[in-house]
Amino acid sequence: MTEKKERPIGIFDSGVGGLTVAREVMRNIPGERIVYFGDTARVPYGNKSKETILRYSRQIVRFLQTQEVKAIVVACNTASAFALEEIRHELDVPIIGVVKPGAKTACETTKNNRIGVIGTKGTIASGLYTEFIRKIKPDAQVIGVACPLFVPLVEESMLKDPVTMEMARRYLSALKDRRIDTLILGCTHYPLLRAVIGEIMGADVTLVNPAYETARGLKKLLEEEELRSARPAKEGETGHRFFVSDAAESFRDFANSILPIDIEKAQKINIEEY
Amino acid sequence: MTEKKERPIGIFDSGVGGLTVAREVMRNIPGERIVYFGDTARVPYGNKSKETILRYSRQIVRFLQTQEVKAIVVACNTASAFALEEIRHELDVPIIGVVKPGAKTACETTKNNRIGVIGTKGTIASGLYTEFIRKIKPDAQVIGVACPLFVPLVEESMLKDPVTMEMARRYLSALKDRRIDTLILGCTHYPLLRAVIGEIMGADVTLVNPAYETARGLKKLLEEEELRSARPAKEGETGHRFFVSDAAESFRDFANSILPIDIEKAQKINIEEY
Repeated sequence: MTEKKERPIGIFDSGVGGLTVAREVMRNIPGERIVYFGDTARVPYGNKSKETILRYSRQIVRFLQTQEVKAIVVACNTASAFALEEIRHELDVPIIGVVKPGAKTACETTKNNRIGVIGTKGTIASGLYTEFIRKIKPDAQVIGVACPLFVPLVEESMLKDPVTMEMARRYLSALKDRRIDTLILGCTHYPLLRAVIGEIMGADVTLVNPAYETARGLKKLLEEEELRSARPAKEGETGHRFFVSDAAESFRDFANSILPIDIEKAQKINIEEY
Repeated sequence: MTEKKERPIGIFDSGVGGLTVAREVMRNIPGERIVYFGDTARVPYGNKSKETILRYSRQIVRFLQTQEVKAIVVACNTASAFALEEIRHELDVPIIGVVKPGAKTACETTKNNRIGVIGTKGTIASGLYTEFIRKIKPDAQVIGVACPLFVPLVEESMLKDPVTMEMARRYLSALKDRRIDTLILGCTHYPLLRAVIGEIMGADVTLVNPAYETARGLKKLLEEEELRSARPAKEGETGHRFFVSDAAESFRDFANSILPIDIEKAQKINIEEY
């Protein structure tokens, strides 16, 4: 049995989006090994019910536990919103999601107390960003907007396409009208649309990327719990492992396009067995 | 045990798209009862692998058999392309898909032997429409184009939106250049985009809707196998049953917007248990 602090960190998402979180963990917490799971056989999570997302998340957490992870990151806003609090009580390792770190940073950033949140239908309907923000800043105005076409547009690599620009204009117009000064990118796919969203919102609106905030939060958590690996960080680290429930090759290609390292393969598993 | 020919017909799809097939069955084979299953917890199927679609289809067929269906319709082009032939050999009831009837009608329709097919990535990559068409018309030219954004656009009800028009123009331009005279709508969502697709392709191109052809094929099959129900058809038939793996309420609302009857509810089941 590996000494506890040398065990890997488990990170999961509905698919490729959570790789933006894995990327920030690699950049900001060198020396740590990651076990990543992307639920590509059941993606997307954004339009599905709480009950279903909770069942899927429990299966994934059981799989990650077979990999002896020392901590778990729910790198999916929908699963963070629907499943994190219930799963926390069923676990003996620390678990963090992307919603709370994003909400906290937005509260530290805003000057006019008007915060926008964009995400999937599930994330926005859950109201969880609003709840976390109001706990910190009870007088904050939070305006949530679901952007259901952003995920398919990112998955089609239409990152700077006129169609994406048009949809962004529609989704974001209500937020511009409300004069927010801070916007949370509340879905792990959305940082890949940063250029388009930034252009529409303008330089006066700060974009908060929960992926980055989550990596910082995870680092702090590992230090507090004395779980930080003592291994020296190496260039081109290869101790990470990637698992998916389907389409391993296209996952690997996408991963290699956004991660700071090249991965050789993603292993396909049957998540329904967990 | 119900007399065999009075048993219901099982119809399944990844989600709501197959309701266009259920609608044609209700219109064209009065008196028959339907058991419909929509796999809304794992939708969409279009970007997933053959192995995964086959596993999902087997689970659904096992569920439909618990409902004592007399025949099964695979009302999903991706599942028809990836799973139908393998499942056929494992079953003791007749099963038909949407691909073969669509291919047959396209062959009867074309005059210049240039046939276009639009569908999901999975359906187009399978090459199954081309294969079936070439069996009937070995000299036909078949041009397949994947339209991955059409399903999310339909699910957002953007049926006549300028964005949908723009995407349709891009996807269909290669088909216009190749001067096809017949276009198969090779995904059960696409008949809902008929107006946009028809406007771009023009009056000289005949659109083939496999949902309608499948209902006709099913009627013939039931008659040949002496499985046609002898029940008199009733106005506002309510003997149908609807099952989903998630989001039963939004499924019911969508169903009521496109079916000729109103359904009271869709029942949620855990398909992973089958």
